[in-house]
Amino acid sequence: MAKLRLHIQEDEGHDEIYRITPAAYAREAVRFTEIADRLDVSFGANDERDDIGLATAEVLLCGYFNNKGLQTRAPKLRWVQSIFAGVDKLVPAIAPGVTLTNSSGIHAQKAGEYALGAMLMLNSAVPHFIEAQRNKEWSQRFTPSISRRTAVILGAGRLAQAVAKNAALLGMSVIGMARTAGPRPDMPDCRGIDELRDVLPLADFLVMMVPNTPETRGLIGRYELGLLPAHAGIVSLGRASVMDHDALVDRLEAGELSGAFLDVFEQEPVPASSRLWGAPRLIMSPHCALDDGPDYVRLSLDLFFANMRRYLDGESLDNVVDTGRGY
Amino acid sequence: MAKLRLHIQEDEGHDEIYRITPAAYAREAVRFTEIADRLDVSFGANDERDDIGLATAEVLLCGYFNNKGLQTRAPKLRWVQSIFAGVDKLVPAIAPGVTLTNSSGIHAQKAGEYALGAMLMLNSAVPHFIEAQRNKEWSQRFTPSISRRTAVILGAGRLAQAVAKNAALLGMSVIGMARTAGPRPDMPDCRGIDELRDVLPLADFLVMMVPNTPETRGLIGRYELGLLPAHAGIVSLGRASVMDHDALVDRLEAGELSGAFLDVFEQEPVPASSRLWGAPRLIMSPHCALDDGPDYVRLSLDLFFANMRRYLDGESLDNVVDTGRGY
Repeated sequence: MAKLRLHIQEDEGHDEIYRITPAAYAREAVRFTEIADRLDVSFGANDERDDIGLATAEVLLCGYFNNKGLQTRAPKLRWVQSIFAGVDKLVPAIAPGVTLTNSSGIHAQKAGEYALGAMLMLNSAVPHFIEAQRNKEWSQRFTPSISRRTAVILGAGRLAQAVAKNAALLGMSVIGMARTAGPRPDMPDCRGIDELRDVLPLADFLVMMVPNTPETRGLIGRYELGLLPAHAGIVSLGRASVMDHDALVDRLEAGELSGAFLDVFEQEPVPASSRLWGAPRLIMSPHCALDDGPDYVRLSLDLFFANMRRYLDGESLDNVVDTGRGY
Repeated sequence: MAKLRLHIQEDEGHDEIYRITPAAYAREAVRFTEIADRLDVSFGANDERDDIGLATAEVLLCGYFNNKGLQTRAPKLRWVQSIFAGVDKLVPAIAPGVTLTNSSGIHAQKAGEYALGAMLMLNSAVPHFIEAQRNKEWSQRFTPSISRRTAVILGAGRLAQAVAKNAALLGMSVIGMARTAGPRPDMPDCRGIDELRDVLPLADFLVMMVPNTPETRGLIGRYELGLLPAHAGIVSLGRASVMDHDALVDRLEAGELSGAFLDVFEQEPVPASSRLWGAPRLIMSPHCALDDGPDYVRLSLDLFFANMRRYLDGESLDNVVDTGRGY
């Protein structure tokens, strides 16, 4: 039986944790020998000579890379698996008829953990304490238990569900928001996005967990931010384009909102001129909060091999991206 | 039947959330009318004239107040209930034969929440991000899920148990440390303090939840801090005297430890000259992390009325302080 041609394209310029090197692949493939034995694998980095493998590949496993002209460089492609959840930069490179799958879900564990930690810190006024500490001010705040608080989660995918699950563990109320209303796993109360303006005033925390799509862009603008109670806190872990950061900083500078934890930004790295760096009660993490350092490659290959089994068995793949919708 | 004389001493200088005013007492007492009807209540603030109520009181409910000469000012006292957990400043004022009870436990909910939030932030390198943000540096850190981490909790009381419970909810391993080894509720692995030096190297987080007693003073000195792994994080919520803060700052300044969340300090407010204010990856909250703002008086009176029922029924009281041991 002819082996299936798999090309693994890794970006040498990217952080080590994302690199599926030949050694990393070999280390994980031993857990899936029945599948791995049916694959003929080539590896590419950022060298044009690596395109030899790409030219004959039926399946491409990749992170970010220079995908310019992919359709001519890889004419035999039928399926592209990204190791990332956000594929907005990859979508335009995919030929019609080629299936694109993302790694949605592998960030769920850390997303649930980070969002819960951020909400707990916001609830205890820690962003205020950090600001006070900078000024050597002893400035107490007495806050209630988080069990009396409500999280509004924008999004209803696996990451959003992981946040909802952890919030419920501590007795919080959760309202999810999605394109269509209706219960999701760990998210019994999920409402349609048309209710957004009715729901925002109920939020003690607004957690943003949606991808960058035409529908989500600018969803939380100045008006929507104004609908949040003055004590509310913000956690932004999806895509930056969803929220008006300038309006956010304005409200923080006005002394409103308990704070904001942002992991994603319109421009990354954030330019030195940005107002975000010095905004009060705003805590930035440089787009890494959801990426499991020691486990990223393992989690990516777990998902890839599960999908490859489906592919080889002629089943429909998991995590197929609607390239029209963008996620 | 003669009513029992109860005096409630509140400190007008203290934050509003701790003040059991006549209005606050009346509001909560309606939930305990059978007990409240048997009490003859007087109230005192910081005025000497309020000592009239104190002079005839059999029971005193109090927070911090000027307790100088209490034994002569309140000769009929048989029981003193503090609304605080830490009673080291009250112990010397209590006459032999008078029962002292504290409010140990009412901080458990918030303690569990704050410690979990702090551990989640430490695990995600947020103290590092805060420091980097101050310098406008985009400095990524990729960290594992907290489910693979171990918390060493110094203490095994109700607050420590609340921390252990929440840590277990997220899949963490927990090792408790107490005077005597043996399982506690929500803390199946609790070891004797004599094992401290063997356990510290296992800690991804060290959570300090012990009172200030002769036995705990200086328990975490320079040597013990040095036994923690370089990636470990610290959460200090009990009493400051337990840890050598100077040694802590030294280790943080050397670039070690993921960070420290401190809520308690040797001197409060912390003096402007303290090294703590500017120490890297050190996040201070001004001794309020465990105090439930809107609910402090309600929780205090819940505990008080439960104890008063026992007192009236001749049962042994809950939360009796061993005045020799100090907690």
